[in-house]
Amino acid sequence: MKTAAYDITGAATRAACLALDALDPLAPLRDRFDLPDGVIYLDGNSLGARPRAALERARDVVAQEWGHGLIRSWNTAGWFALPGRLGDRLAPLIGAGAGEVVVTDTTSLNLFKALAAALAIQAERDPARKTIVTERSNFPTDIYMADGLARWLDRGYRIHLVDAHEELDAAVDDGCAVLMLTHVNYRTGRQHDMAALTARAHARGALAVWDLAHSAGAVPVDLNGAEADFAVGCTYKYLNGGPGAPAFIWVPRRHQDAFRHPLTGWWSHAAPFAMAHGFEAAEGIGRALCGTQPVVSLALVECGLELFEATSMAALRAKSLALTDLFIALVETRCAAHPLGLVTPRAHAQRGSQVSFTHPHGYAVMQALIARGVIGDYREPAIMRFGFTPLYTRFADVWDAVETLRDILDAGAYDTRAAKSAVT
Amino acid sequence: MKTAAYDITGAATRAACLALDALDPLAPLRDRFDLPDGVIYLDGNSLGARPRAALERARDVVAQEWGHGLIRSWNTAGWFALPGRLGDRLAPLIGAGAGEVVVTDTTSLNLFKALAAALAIQAERDPARKTIVTERSNFPTDIYMADGLARWLDRGYRIHLVDAHEELDAAVDDGCAVLMLTHVNYRTGRQHDMAALTARAHARGALAVWDLAHSAGAVPVDLNGAEADFAVGCTYKYLNGGPGAPAFIWVPRRHQDAFRHPLTGWWSHAAPFAMAHGFEAAEGIGRALCGTQPVVSLALVECGLELFEATSMAALRAKSLALTDLFIALVETRCAAHPLGLVTPRAHAQRGSQVSFTHPHGYAVMQALIARGVIGDYREPAIMRFGFTPLYTRFADVWDAVETLRDILDAGAYDTRAAKSAVT
Repeated sequence: MKTAAYDITGAATRAACLALDALDPLAPLRDRFDLPDGVIYLDGNSLGARPRAALERARDVVAQEWGHGLIRSWNTAGWFALPGRLGDRLAPLIGAGAGEVVVTDTTSLNLFKALAAALAIQAERDPARKTIVTERSNFPTDIYMADGLARWLDRGYRIHLVDAHEELDAAVDDGCAVLMLTHVNYRTGRQHDMAALTARAHARGALAVWDLAHSAGAVPVDLNGAEADFAVGCTYKYLNGGPGAPAFIWVPRRHQDAFRHPLTGWWSHAAPFAMAHGFEAAEGIGRALCGTQPVVSLALVECGLELFEATSMAALRAKSLALTDLFIALVETRCAAHPLGLVTPRAHAQRGSQVSFTHPHGYAVMQALIARGVIGDYREPAIMRFGFTPLYTRFADVWDAVETLRDILDAGAYDTRAAKSAVT
Repeated sequence: MKTAAYDITGAATRAACLALDALDPLAPLRDRFDLPDGVIYLDGNSLGARPRAALERARDVVAQEWGHGLIRSWNTAGWFALPGRLGDRLAPLIGAGAGEVVVTDTTSLNLFKALAAALAIQAERDPARKTIVTERSNFPTDIYMADGLARWLDRGYRIHLVDAHEELDAAVDDGCAVLMLTHVNYRTGRQHDMAALTARAHARGALAVWDLAHSAGAVPVDLNGAEADFAVGCTYKYLNGGPGAPAFIWVPRRHQDAFRHPLTGWWSHAAPFAMAHGFEAAEGIGRALCGTQPVVSLALVECGLELFEATSMAALRAKSLALTDLFIALVETRCAAHPLGLVTPRAHAQRGSQVSFTHPHGYAVMQALIARGVIGDYREPAIMRFGFTPLYTRFADVWDAVETLRDILDAGAYDTRAAKSAVT
């Protein structure tokens, strides 16, 4: 088993894992994060760790830009330009061009804008197209937002929830307006073939809208190469932008003139400070904005993005696959006596940067792991998720996490009566 | 001229203003803000100054809650409960009850939710009501959002823009679904009579939606007393929550069951972590939420809100009226030789916490003021705005600001060729 620069074939001991770390060209990037002692953090797919630079940046924005610059900072500190500037910095990670991405609002709201725009385009092209096709296993908020949009439009739009991946093909028929998919599934870690699915949607007259929440910064993405139509995503997972940091939306240049959505706040106006009465949409990606953005949270996104400029998505992907391959191999050998079921695909092309295993007491086992400092998370039903962030996860961390899991399982040291908390 | 505790009758010298400050019971609150040296900040109506506590709070959220707590902080640091907890803390300032307010998203988006809910209620009660009545002088984004919603719904809704306050009465007729007003006008500082206008709207079968962007923390507001229907507002102006900090939305208990809007993200779900496929709205104010919130910016809102608990809106209002009365009186006496026109009403009941004056070269004069450290702002056409924040503005600041204005006007020391920047 060999993955680009990383040969994990013989990695069956902690020493072998330490040797992999010693040779890892990405290893120095870990120092640019502040990670707590005694923790192996395998939940960067839910909330990325803190770049060290974020603390100084927070101090600067709060004390200098807000405190001393006050209202002047909208100009002098470039607050107004921030959504576009961050978008341009994020763009190379997802195969987007300059002027095609803004960091703003939430993933849910950006999906709403993208879907509204896609339906409006289709209503002009072929008004008989009334379905939004997606997977039942999609992240629920994506389905809720599509449902909210469809119900309110009240023009016969409906959501077609596909149960199995194999049914997608048939579902994208000549009644399909939009194929809306999450590129990497939040629960299984399965990755779709964006280029193939987009091409098939286009061949049948549908538009393809992609949610990159578990892809941006996690796997190579080439939106323009795939000729995708719209995309949205999250900055607080693999991009390490901070808790609840504003999300992003990508509108390719070819769709920008046609991009219309109902959330027409003043930031999407062609001349926001003219305070004109009539709405006139900004040219370009600016029309995907809406209202005033939370500057402190927004500014911290840059500290996450700049770390990616020290490497490449290809290099990160090579390490990600090595980490996930190693984790799968070690769990399956070291914990072979226990009823763990691999959920994430073994095929590299179908894998994101997380690994999910089922266990009949998945919730309790995950709580025991967290109590011992191995932080993953749990999703219904019975799924333990482990996210791997090549920017800061070490091969020795993989070893130690699996050994901790083995210890817990061998000893039965988990409490199956533990009450589930709101978030795990 | 006497305003509650503050008698500004004889305040015609700097010494008299200093004497007012010496007697001011709110004067110590200024120490709880970090204000730059050499600046008289009269733009808290656009971006409030920084509470000192915000820097330590930012450090705590970034370094401890994010950096060390990581994903666990959603539970341990109460991130999920933050929109409601802040809402409860804000509620007393606007006459709202506990469980009626959340701090979330932007004012524009919250207005969209409130308008959508109001139209849905009216569509059941009386579907023939098709107009949203508002003022042409309303803050543009409010009109844009209403317009975006109406166009997108495409069910015959239209926006009726009223030019003069006196025309509102006739406009709220039996075709009116919603009266949508900003309580204190952003440009003129004029305050509406919320109770009277709401009562008249109700008498004619319309609902009343209020934007409190320039009211919350600026003037006493009694939403439940006025029996208003919905309200939204901003935390980064008079509430000093930080640049672009999340906004708020108020849904009174009597409307919560009927509150429906299309932005149904997972945070508005009854059980967000059940990851159910079908959307079921949360009970209570939680249904006004949508997606994941920007935690760092959100957390800082608390530092602004807690300052209000050291005083009362009645005490703040008394000082605000004294400050604005004094500013008007001094400008009209000390700058009497210059073509300044008072825009803001003299009647206390019709005044917010700002004073606007026109000047033929308003933009250039404001730039000259800012260059000398007196920071107000400018709005088209020809309006210089001066915001007064009784938490930190001193009577001596009012004196010094007017003297600086007088010096500039007497010397003609402003550049009428100055190019207008994006924000002023």
